[in-house]
Amino acid sequence: MNRWKQHIPQGVQDYLPGECYNKRRIEQIIRKTFYTGGYDEIESPVFEYYDVFTGDKEYIEQENMFKIVEAGGRIQVLRPDITMPIARIVGTKLKSLEAPIRLSYLSNVYRYEELQTGKQREIAQAGIELLGVGSPEGDGEVIATAIQCFINLGLEDFLIEIGQVEFFKGLVEDAGLNPEEAEQLRLLIEEKNQLMLEMFLKEFPMDKKLKGILMDLPSMYGDVDVLERGAEYTKNPRCQRAIANIRQVHEVLKDYGLEEFITFDLGMLHSLNYYTGIIFKGFTRDLGFTICGGGRYDNLLSEFGRNLPATGFAMGLKRLLMALDRQGKLLDLPSVDTLVVFDTENRRRGYQLAQKIREEGRRVELLSRDGEGINPQEYARIRNISNIIDLSEKDRGDYKW
Amino acid sequence: MNRWKQHIPQGVQDYLPGECYNKRRIEQIIRKTFYTGGYDEIESPVFEYYDVFTGDKEYIEQENMFKIVEAGGRIQVLRPDITMPIARIVGTKLKSLEAPIRLSYLSNVYRYEELQTGKQREIAQAGIELLGVGSPEGDGEVIATAIQCFINLGLEDFLIEIGQVEFFKGLVEDAGLNPEEAEQLRLLIEEKNQLMLEMFLKEFPMDKKLKGILMDLPSMYGDVDVLERGAEYTKNPRCQRAIANIRQVHEVLKDYGLEEFITFDLGMLHSLNYYTGIIFKGFTRDLGFTICGGGRYDNLLSEFGRNLPATGFAMGLKRLLMALDRQGKLLDLPSVDTLVVFDTENRRRGYQLAQKIREEGRRVELLSRDGEGINPQEYARIRNISNIIDLSEKDRGDYKW
Repeated sequence: MNRWKQHIPQGVQDYLPGECYNKRRIEQIIRKTFYTGGYDEIESPVFEYYDVFTGDKEYIEQENMFKIVEAGGRIQVLRPDITMPIARIVGTKLKSLEAPIRLSYLSNVYRYEELQTGKQREIAQAGIELLGVGSPEGDGEVIATAIQCFINLGLEDFLIEIGQVEFFKGLVEDAGLNPEEAEQLRLLIEEKNQLMLEMFLKEFPMDKKLKGILMDLPSMYGDVDVLERGAEYTKNPRCQRAIANIRQVHEVLKDYGLEEFITFDLGMLHSLNYYTGIIFKGFTRDLGFTICGGGRYDNLLSEFGRNLPATGFAMGLKRLLMALDRQGKLLDLPSVDTLVVFDTENRRRGYQLAQKIREEGRRVELLSRDGEGINPQEYARIRNISNIIDLSEKDRGDYKW
Repeated sequence: MNRWKQHIPQGVQDYLPGECYNKRRIEQIIRKTFYTGGYDEIESPVFEYYDVFTGDKEYIEQENMFKIVEAGGRIQVLRPDITMPIARIVGTKLKSLEAPIRLSYLSNVYRYEELQTGKQREIAQAGIELLGVGSPEGDGEVIATAIQCFINLGLEDFLIEIGQVEFFKGLVEDAGLNPEEAEQLRLLIEEKNQLMLEMFLKEFPMDKKLKGILMDLPSMYGDVDVLERGAEYTKNPRCQRAIANIRQVHEVLKDYGLEEFITFDLGMLHSLNYYTGIIFKGFTRDLGFTICGGGRYDNLLSEFGRNLPATGFAMGLKRLLMALDRQGKLLDLPSVDTLVVFDTENRRRGYQLAQKIREEGRRVELLSRDGEGINPQEYARIRNISNIIDLSEKDRGDYKW
């Protein structure tokens, strides 16, 4: 036998019945949260033109996309993201739908990752996009929807960390860095690499105070005092507006009664460079990685022919499953309730009975005495089936009753 | 603007809110039918090793698979089928699970199709595999589950056509054709190409009666009389066993009370060459294509290290949606129930109220008076929202009440 018939590629996974059951369960809870929140679900195809994901900026690196090249055709990719396909749909098929537009999805995205990174190449995501709301109310609603999903899922000990891309941009402006230098700086801050950060900043002439802020940026997270600190640090108007904007969103979330789930991080710098305002990440205290991420992206839609402000977020379902598992919040796949045993003579009655029980939403398996010679008692025991209804009339001396 | 940002590749589609709502709805009905029937859902990855889909026979033509070739890695494909990944899982991760094993899935498969064929390249399927039941009871259960899905979906005017691959194999044996000739013959019969069929058969010396049967094969479909005719036509033992087997499955389905949905076709010859017994297709009278297909495949599992008889079927969700649409069985996506309008002063009350209504499963949108300047009445009218709860206290002279 070809041993490769028994393997799957690295970076992907099988969801076996127990895990698949929980995945479907959390999908349903998330779907219902989105639905009752007024979001309409859509589904975009796996194959998209490469053009959708590249434009003024390379939002997702070409290297991270799975490409399909067909002779005589344009380059296609396996969608690495769903926000851009949604922007495409809103700019075309939904172009006459008036704003605000609320859309949601539960779909996989595909990213080429080097195997040694241990990262997944097929990533199940759920998310929403709120289009046409430029005010902090929109950011607040999207963050509240993320929080509401986690609450509805029974997740505990989670936090949403809020940042604002304009704060960093203001500092970059003050420091007089060009876009390439800014990107280098962004990476160093994101990696929280203090030593390299210090070496990097040494090369640029800037006032000591500004250098101090940039050095401090990786540690500018925590409760609302961080905003205080940020506002005092710099008088740059972009930075000031960024902090005022975070405060407004904070007010919305306080009014929503969700303050306990909120924290701040002025040093948060998303790698997807389409964000233009508020950005946020969710995490649980017991997991070393984020479970959701999102933010405001006011310039993206215009690339698809429709000029709308927007906020969105996506969460990773596998990571959520892991977080819920660590918190003991996953359920066991329910066993089959009833085993209906029959022989050919009363098969009709057996099936009718099974269908009647199934209509109540209960799980029923059929077992024919004239079939594979399976012992019903033994089988029910193995499968943890609590009820056996035996309609067979023949004398079954070989089984004990 | 790059105009390719506004297009999707041929052979795939967007599911916009209305259609997506119906897709999710039918997925839920199908999922529940499988679940109450004792089938456990699993999910396999999109990326699989090419090896999984090729073996003693080329079950799916290499030309029809999307391939991913990574330097230093084995060839991967986008899964063109789910039965083989399930066989892989049953042969490995579920190898200690005792038979019978009932598994289900709702997933996309990917097939490379020439664009001019108009065929879809991303195909949403739902199906089951019943492993470890070699008797006609197993075939009957799988066919009954397909029928039960259609009944639960409210589909009308559908039929399941049943054939048996051994009938054709018996005739091929009698005619003394080699595998290649048999495949040519199979294609001619499948295409119901009588003229070419006659020309083809002229080349082979065989008795007139046998030639007559082969010529008749494309028309050997209809009610149970067809089995009568088939049994009289030939004394070949394989053919006789095939017909006896169909009769047994027919008996099961009669006992299940599902006879009205059954018809027969001795000339049915599936292109997937892993089937070993009963094969079947479902269709509705108003659609020109099949909505499901399946059959018995007793030899496949052994290629994955586990020797189990098996029957399965898959249905195409897009085709089901089309059939239900023609029968007027699709629903409208429910509008949002309630628009909660507030201003900053009573945002807290607005959100609380919205959450309370959402907890009842109803859809609520929030609209801030201090946001985008949207007129609530006008917006509710456009969106077909029947209830407006306006908590805003400010005088809104600009709107008529």
